[in-house]
Amino acid sequence: MVENKKIKIGLIGLGTVGSGVVKVLTGFPEIEIKKIAVKNINKKRNIENLDTSILCDNPFDIVNDPEIDIVVEVIGGTDPAYELLVTAVKNGKHIVTANKELLAKKGEPLFKLAKENNVSILYEAAIAGGIPIIMPIKTTLAGNKINKIEAILNGTTNYILTKMEKDGVSYEQVLKEAQELGYAETDPTGDVEGYDSAYKIATLATIALNQRVDINKIYREGITKISANDMQFAKELGYKIKLIALAKLTEDNKADVRVHPMLVPLKEGLASINGVTNSVVLDGFPVGRVMMAGPGAGEFPTASSVVGDILIIARSMGSGRPLPMMECHHEVTAQQISIEETVNKYYISVTAVNTPGVIGALGEIFGRHNISLASVLQKGIDKENTAQIVIITEFSKESNLNSAINELKNNPNIVRVNNLIRVME
Amino acid sequence: MVENKKIKIGLIGLGTVGSGVVKVLTGFPEIEIKKIAVKNINKKRNIENLDTSILCDNPFDIVNDPEIDIVVEVIGGTDPAYELLVTAVKNGKHIVTANKELLAKKGEPLFKLAKENNVSILYEAAIAGGIPIIMPIKTTLAGNKINKIEAILNGTTNYILTKMEKDGVSYEQVLKEAQELGYAETDPTGDVEGYDSAYKIATLATIALNQRVDINKIYREGITKISANDMQFAKELGYKIKLIALAKLTEDNKADVRVHPMLVPLKEGLASINGVTNSVVLDGFPVGRVMMAGPGAGEFPTASSVVGDILIIARSMGSGRPLPMMECHHEVTAQQISIEETVNKYYISVTAVNTPGVIGALGEIFGRHNISLASVLQKGIDKENTAQIVIITEFSKESNLNSAINELKNNPNIVRVNNLIRVME
Repeated sequence: MVENKKIKIGLIGLGTVGSGVVKVLTGFPEIEIKKIAVKNINKKRNIENLDTSILCDNPFDIVNDPEIDIVVEVIGGTDPAYELLVTAVKNGKHIVTANKELLAKKGEPLFKLAKENNVSILYEAAIAGGIPIIMPIKTTLAGNKINKIEAILNGTTNYILTKMEKDGVSYEQVLKEAQELGYAETDPTGDVEGYDSAYKIATLATIALNQRVDINKIYREGITKISANDMQFAKELGYKIKLIALAKLTEDNKADVRVHPMLVPLKEGLASINGVTNSVVLDGFPVGRVMMAGPGAGEFPTASSVVGDILIIARSMGSGRPLPMMECHHEVTAQQISIEETVNKYYISVTAVNTPGVIGALGEIFGRHNISLASVLQKGIDKENTAQIVIITEFSKESNLNSAINELKNNPNIVRVNNLIRVME
Repeated sequence: MVENKKIKIGLIGLGTVGSGVVKVLTGFPEIEIKKIAVKNINKKRNIENLDTSILCDNPFDIVNDPEIDIVVEVIGGTDPAYELLVTAVKNGKHIVTANKELLAKKGEPLFKLAKENNVSILYEAAIAGGIPIIMPIKTTLAGNKINKIEAILNGTTNYILTKMEKDGVSYEQVLKEAQELGYAETDPTGDVEGYDSAYKIATLATIALNQRVDINKIYREGITKISANDMQFAKELGYKIKLIALAKLTEDNKADVRVHPMLVPLKEGLASINGVTNSVVLDGFPVGRVMMAGPGAGEFPTASSVVGDILIIARSMGSGRPLPMMECHHEVTAQQISIEETVNKYYISVTAVNTPGVIGALGEIFGRHNISLASVLQKGIDKENTAQIVIITEFSKESNLNSAINELKNNPNIVRVNNLIRVME
């Protein structure tokens, strides 16, 4: 009987996510894992009842296997993943991938090829781990125009920021602890400099704004410059500092997509997202504001999304054409604005000489650049007779702000501009 | 060309939700509203460019119209909605409905009929308004075993509880205000006694637990007995009081489904869901804990889900069979446990005679019924020389708790048992 035909998958990669997928799929006898490509066939693996006879060390054996219906790629990176998936698509196979870097850098040609070959590419696991976000945007929310997405998409940085805030300690100290606990990698650049979040928001913004977003035009700034002082000042002012991935449509329908730290008001849902949790808040019409939160990484949460995608394809394969709503190729390229063109509120931390009138002088400089100040706080005087001053601005154009900051830097009463962090509305 | 064929829908009901659907669908020229059934054709309606020639006053004209592909039902109630939808399904039409009462009371025969007739019934709007929840559970989370759902599914009661907590005023006073503002109906029973939440959790539990849940076996308790004192005591103890719809699997795979107020610890996401917002938190394996929040009602949020469902059906209609993953008929009937069999922590507010040893006596009574106390607080003594005592228990079986409460009521030192509210873990 046709109904009893097992769907055959080929799995490329058997690391954390791949192992989770194998374990979870044992509960779904209608799915058969036909082959698994690994680097080292002889490596001991912590998977109960793993049939080692299905392991292979050439992933092209999977993408070229005529019996395999769905290729599941969980190796990450663009090379050799891109070539593998191109081959798989050309061979008529559906794809499930958790590879955010590949999607950000090579998504469009891959999606175009998939469309031409009438196959589906699903990638729920690539963005926000276990949280369902791609599917809801593509289906239940399909009647919406989404204007804005604000998201916490990287668990490592959110863990570090949460810990810095709770314990009042420095970035360097928390990073070290996180590395010891395995929450941060030995080379943490991909996470702490915002690359991981940028990959994810590139794809999420493309889907949500329904325009092709170019990863190379996304402004990206990490969390390495956030100080314990910034954390403390933010707290006193009623904010938390979070690494935010943001995508919004400007009034003239251009795309404002970026990743950087933000002061998030305590009343915002994102302010209560702690530790390794991820969250996506979207604003659209007619739905209004919807928030999702959950585990953004890890063996099982990621496997949840990968297996969900496998089941979606498997259970619709009889219908004769790929999932019509999950089409990912976008003809329209977004007009992305640069960070200089964006409009934001800002937190600015300055060390100034403790003279009367220094706050007045600051206000005068900002005023000359068309920047109104919402609050100016002097945070005590230290031994060198310098004062910490914390400023929150009203909405200002970033190019104006940069001019003001340059002028501050040349002012003899300003010892240092310590930091500048954008503030969420 | 086949691709250019418009999908024709018939809309039954043009109240708040129906109007939102008509307005939003103007953005989707591939969907044609062929007929709209209303009570009064001549009523003036606030919809721009409404073509009044498509209005009719006999909804059977819609369900029997051979040209209509999808029937959208937004009138609510079981009569005549059930008969209408049965006719529509028998006539081979797909259904989109926002009718939680109908689904709770008549969902199973309707889903069975839909399966027999090879048509889809989608109802994202019936549960948690604009929040995508049915679709994610059925698709992206399909690889999960969901063990527990805790949700705020009624905006009116959450508005009232939020307001009681913020302003420290009585239920009666807030209800009056809410009625004046249009947030509560003149007869608020459906909301404040938990019927609305019970309808919604019946359907949500059926999907999440993958077993048919009987609305008649769901324990239901509303918010009318919550006092300003309870709110105050809860706050002091680090909780908020919320009307929670709960569905969980017991260790022996029985279904524990109920609606009642709960003390929610501040650290829980549900504690920060304020006003008319809805939220669903689900626990499953492999995903872990996922939370969704957003607008649970209203013209546009509800229209978002209705239009999403219309688009899902419309865009898959060419594929020759209904959405395979959205199948809603369940063969297995849940074994639902009664409230007496549940195990909970409890908040108990008691007015006692102010004599030495009354707290000891309370502890002794609870102990005799196998109930350990987590905390006992005496909250001041009033003019009649009685003391307010607030108790939080450890996990206890509800039948044991009821025995203890009965004994308290007969104790000469206990003036009154003021309230008993379950406490979230």
